[in-house]
Amino acid sequence: MTLSSAALLRPQSLALIGVSDDPSKTAGRPLQFLRRAGFDGEIFVVNPRRETVQGEKAYKTLADLPKRPDHAFILTDAEKALDALEECERLGVPVATMLSSGFAEAGERGIANQARLEAILARGTIRLVGPSSIGVVNLHNGLTLTANAAFAEPDLPKGGIFVGSHSGSLIGALVSRGKRKGIGFAGLVSVGAETDLSIGEICLATLDDPQITSYMLFIETLRHADKLQEFALEAAKRGKPVAAFKLGRSEEAAELAVSHTGSLAGADEVADIFLAELGIARVESFEGLLEVMPLLQQVPTSLDGPRRGRVGVVTTTGGGAAMAVDQMALRGVDVVPASEETRARLREKGIEPGEGRIIDLTLAGTRYDVMKATLDILRSAPEFDLVLATAGSSARFNPELVVQPAVDAAREPGHPLAVFLVPDAPDAARLLAKAGVPAFQDPETCGDAIAAALHRRAPTRSTPLDSSAFIGETTVLDEVSCYRLLEHHGLTSAPHIVLKVGDPVPQLPFAYPVVAKVLDSRIAHKTDSGGVVLHIADAAQLAEAMQAIVSRVEENTGIKATEILVQQMTRGVGEVLVGFRRDPQVGPLVVLAAGGIFTELYRDSTMRLAPVDRAAAMEMIHEIKASRILDGYRGAPKGDLDALADAIVSVSRLAAETAPRVEEFEINPLLVLPHGKGVCAIDGLGRVAG
Amino acid sequence: MTLSSAALLRPQSLALIGVSDDPSKTAGRPLQFLRRAGFDGEIFVVNPRRETVQGEKAYKTLADLPKRPDHAFILTDAEKALDALEECERLGVPVATMLSSGFAEAGERGIANQARLEAILARGTIRLVGPSSIGVVNLHNGLTLTANAAFAEPDLPKGGIFVGSHSGSLIGALVSRGKRKGIGFAGLVSVGAETDLSIGEICLATLDDPQITSYMLFIETLRHADKLQEFALEAAKRGKPVAAFKLGRSEEAAELAVSHTGSLAGADEVADIFLAELGIARVESFEGLLEVMPLLQQVPTSLDGPRRGRVGVVTTTGGGAAMAVDQMALRGVDVVPASEETRARLREKGIEPGEGRIIDLTLAGTRYDVMKATLDILRSAPEFDLVLATAGSSARFNPELVVQPAVDAAREPGHPLAVFLVPDAPDAARLLAKAGVPAFQDPETCGDAIAAALHRRAPTRSTPLDSSAFIGETTVLDEVSCYRLLEHHGLTSAPHIVLKVGDPVPQLPFAYPVVAKVLDSRIAHKTDSGGVVLHIADAAQLAEAMQAIVSRVEENTGIKATEILVQQMTRGVGEVLVGFRRDPQVGPLVVLAAGGIFTELYRDSTMRLAPVDRAAAMEMIHEIKASRILDGYRGAPKGDLDALADAIVSVSRLAAETAPRVEEFEINPLLVLPHGKGVCAIDGLGRVAG
Repeated sequence: MTLSSAALLRPQSLALIGVSDDPSKTAGRPLQFLRRAGFDGEIFVVNPRRETVQGEKAYKTLADLPKRPDHAFILTDAEKALDALEECERLGVPVATMLSSGFAEAGERGIANQARLEAILARGTIRLVGPSSIGVVNLHNGLTLTANAAFAEPDLPKGGIFVGSHSGSLIGALVSRGKRKGIGFAGLVSVGAETDLSIGEICLATLDDPQITSYMLFIETLRHADKLQEFALEAAKRGKPVAAFKLGRSEEAAELAVSHTGSLAGADEVADIFLAELGIARVESFEGLLEVMPLLQQVPTSLDGPRRGRVGVVTTTGGGAAMAVDQMALRGVDVVPASEETRARLREKGIEPGEGRIIDLTLAGTRYDVMKATLDILRSAPEFDLVLATAGSSARFNPELVVQPAVDAAREPGHPLAVFLVPDAPDAARLLAKAGVPAFQDPETCGDAIAAALHRRAPTRSTPLDSSAFIGETTVLDEVSCYRLLEHHGLTSAPHIVLKVGDPVPQLPFAYPVVAKVLDSRIAHKTDSGGVVLHIADAAQLAEAMQAIVSRVEENTGIKATEILVQQMTRGVGEVLVGFRRDPQVGPLVVLAAGGIFTELYRDSTMRLAPVDRAAAMEMIHEIKASRILDGYRGAPKGDLDALADAIVSVSRLAAETAPRVEEFEINPLLVLPHGKGVCAIDGLGRVAG
Repeated sequence: MTLSSAALLRPQSLALIGVSDDPSKTAGRPLQFLRRAGFDGEIFVVNPRRETVQGEKAYKTLADLPKRPDHAFILTDAEKALDALEECERLGVPVATMLSSGFAEAGERGIANQARLEAILARGTIRLVGPSSIGVVNLHNGLTLTANAAFAEPDLPKGGIFVGSHSGSLIGALVSRGKRKGIGFAGLVSVGAETDLSIGEICLATLDDPQITSYMLFIETLRHADKLQEFALEAAKRGKPVAAFKLGRSEEAAELAVSHTGSLAGADEVADIFLAELGIARVESFEGLLEVMPLLQQVPTSLDGPRRGRVGVVTTTGGGAAMAVDQMALRGVDVVPASEETRARLREKGIEPGEGRIIDLTLAGTRYDVMKATLDILRSAPEFDLVLATAGSSARFNPELVVQPAVDAAREPGHPLAVFLVPDAPDAARLLAKAGVPAFQDPETCGDAIAAALHRRAPTRSTPLDSSAFIGETTVLDEVSCYRLLEHHGLTSAPHIVLKVGDPVPQLPFAYPVVAKVLDSRIAHKTDSGGVVLHIADAAQLAEAMQAIVSRVEENTGIKATEILVQQMTRGVGEVLVGFRRDPQVGPLVVLAAGGIFTELYRDSTMRLAPVDRAAAMEMIHEIKASRILDGYRGAPKGDLDALADAIVSVSRLAAETAPRVEEFEINPLLVLPHGKGVCAIDGLGRVAG
């Protein structure tokens, strides 16, 4: 059953199950908050042990209610909550929100509850937010259906932002912080453990709500990526921007944020590229999440490839502007000086722009007319994508000098305009927020949000994710099988031949020197097992090497090798790792890494959802630092980057292999030959289903 | 003349020179602010064109004043300001603050003014803050001697922090932001261009002021490092912590922050190590500068080497705590779980600590007694250096639940305690600030400040800086001269011999293979000029190689080589670059880098002020990522890290060479041989004075 946005956010009637008589207790708050906020629908209180609750009539059971509620909030412990959920289902309640612990997170006892919960949900007759959801809020109709203590507050700021959050407590932090800044919300949902409804599916259901103009996501770990993708694509179509803060840059926080299933290695990087490909602006700071939205509504997404963004800065405080410039530059945004034409236009208005990278109006004077004229000129200058005005002390006491001109300028067409407030200036922040002008109160947040907005691209991935896990046996491919598979995708390997152990060494179809390698899919680490001999100069040395390999491998691994791969020694301008793997959340990924020690010591790698096109492959190449070695480093010959891009595309297409399906694959190293000579695999490792 | 702290911050009488009648104008503000703040000394207004200014009697000239003022604030343009300064000097005014433009920053016209200013100051009879200082403030006696508009504000927060700032506008931002957080200041100085008095010297003069308990520095670029060092060492002796925010992590901001003299490459990294060695806590964020101080007053500096710091976290909000954990972990702080003993102690009190890395009290309940008991137990647990409490929604409305127990706990002995406030909770922030409990309002600031405090070490550098620049000719050392110099410091190079071009090849005192290299100090890039031949197997090849080198070098550079260095080919476990240079601000530096491509692509390098001891050299080794290659990487033999440390110490001692003085020196590469075999230079480059 598709989630009904109306039942979720605009129910005509509510059932509160297990509500406490004490309004200060967790289970007592929702009733109190709903009444205080003036919720416009009917509220039925269910409590089998009391006649009244907080002065209202209490019903013994759901079945006693005079009508079927649109939405039930279940506040009891797990066992009773399951009973209540089943009763909701029987009565045809379309959606329930559950604030109950004692499920998957609760060990032994939780396992049975979780199983029972999943069995109910599998029937598909009722949709669930939770369990362990602190609640659902719609500020426009007083639906403060939540136990979060922050909603005790009067005058919560109404607006167009809808929040989906993995953390229940954070929805309270967002509204209190938003209130201070004049940032208003349409609604907020704490999604709990997402056993049924996920952030993506909930947000998707709300997309046609005209009171919701943008989305703010607080993500602890990536789950239900397919729904998130569906939502992001539809949001982009409607021009409703989506910003996300995701926990878990550090391994410690990732560990806190996720349950015990599955490996985490690289999970945050996967989320990073996934969100980027969906056109979701990922901010790095919590305040950035709050403050980025007006920018996202004004800065168009980049349609053609990566964009650094060009920012023009005007200031009345040198030190304040320098802080913001620092933070933008550190995040890869270009702070560009005004052109000669722009400077001439400023001088025509009697405004001396100075010579530096920013326009410093300290000498011209902190005045309305000077600032307004400067903003008008900068906002129409073609060298900028965005204009940032930095406001000093005047922002606190004299908003008419710098803040008001920004408000007035922003009403007229021109580049997006943002303001960085250097002093504590909450009134100015609210004034700017009310006018829809992006305003930042810290240089770090300013840099974070501007980078996120300028770097945001239109969604590039519209095909459905294939994150299906393969259940069953997988087979390791030996090196030759890897080369066959690569050949099928148009990728060459160094000339090689397979010799049987014991056979005499034949005339090779390629020249010496060669390398001999044990060929056996059971041996994952050929070098460690003694299975590789390099720099073999002739047939006699080869025969010797083959014998040595066989005896060393048997000694080290107990495996009797029967085949030896003989390969011509080949050198390139440089070497890389190109890999393919399937992530349990987002599906196929293609990886490019510097290879060997560079990857491991310096984490010099990048990835994309697979498959990729040639343009994306080229972006990947330029994202790794080692590509400078491939591109004519210190007078060395240039490598064949075109061929490398083709190779990345080819490996990414392993995603489409179905017979058998490729689970993971790695060419390490792939030699990059001089320009025009292509690339050449000299080792491969893979695993396929079946 | 030593700066008198009394004249600067506690003058009995003031002269305001060039003060405007209009209190809203820049030159009118100081008089208004001083009167409003109730400054407790006499104020004399000097204005040659008016009888009265803002209703006060105006004197025509300084000479007309009834007494000699202790401190003059000069608010005129440069030319008049210089006249005024000379008059102050004649009258024996000990210190002047000057808010005037038109000096070094102002091109042609400025050059003459700057020269005249420096000539006055060179006489040493008057000390100057500025020029281009927005003023000097002492909040304890109403000395708001500033034109910064922020000081129009009533009830500025008084406290123990003294601010030295390169930016004039930022002192206003700091007080307004401090007010909101309940952070109080003793005084603030905008130091302007530091033509005479620098941040370091000003702060040094105030160190015995009992109302000043800590220092906050806003640094745009490192100047007068010697004075900063003197101040930092004295501050450490008195236990008055110093925090610094420095602009210019990015090149763009560094460009904005400094004048046009001198190269900037690496300037920010130099500042970083300099501040660290002085025991100054450098924060990364502007809010961090404001919020770090109570932490610095409680967390003792590390006395014995680097410290990551071990933090125990307790929370009533999982998502909020995870954000803080993320930010601490990303900055190299260890968030450690409670020990079994600590958990047992919590359980004895009926508090279930759970199993994870943090103590989550969500189930135990957000209650005073639970939080207080938990904090008491964690603050005495030996596994922690610091305890962080994360407060959720309750911090906004019910400070008695989580915030008050933190205030009460902090009164008792135990580890330092900090609080992260997840919602907007200004009252809680002020309550905590008043109690001296470090409080943070953003996870990023929290991580920044905790890392800065835990990583801060006692000053390690007590010898005076030698940042004297050598004026005159320098001589480039050839490779053999470099080896001689290294030998003198106990460092070996690969066996080598110098052959004259034209002489027959003798029997070498070491075995082949060898490398032949042109030996001529005029040739900086031996390989590029064709002056190097590797892998020479015997005497015949050597003779050939020498001829080839001579002709190629002449062809490429026009230089007729007369000597060839022949060196035994040597291999190591790995190689590094060890260098020495003199920074114009901080003096001698020793650098360790991964060498070659690693340094350039991955910026894998570290440095220290020279000389260093063995412990510091070992720290440097562990700071570069490439040292993993030297330490038995992937089963390879371990390199001789002890010998490498000795080599770093030796190169750092080049700082003491005086005959001649070494200006710069680089061993690249220095081979690291297997453990017990030492290190071995195989190339060297240097420049000495004279």
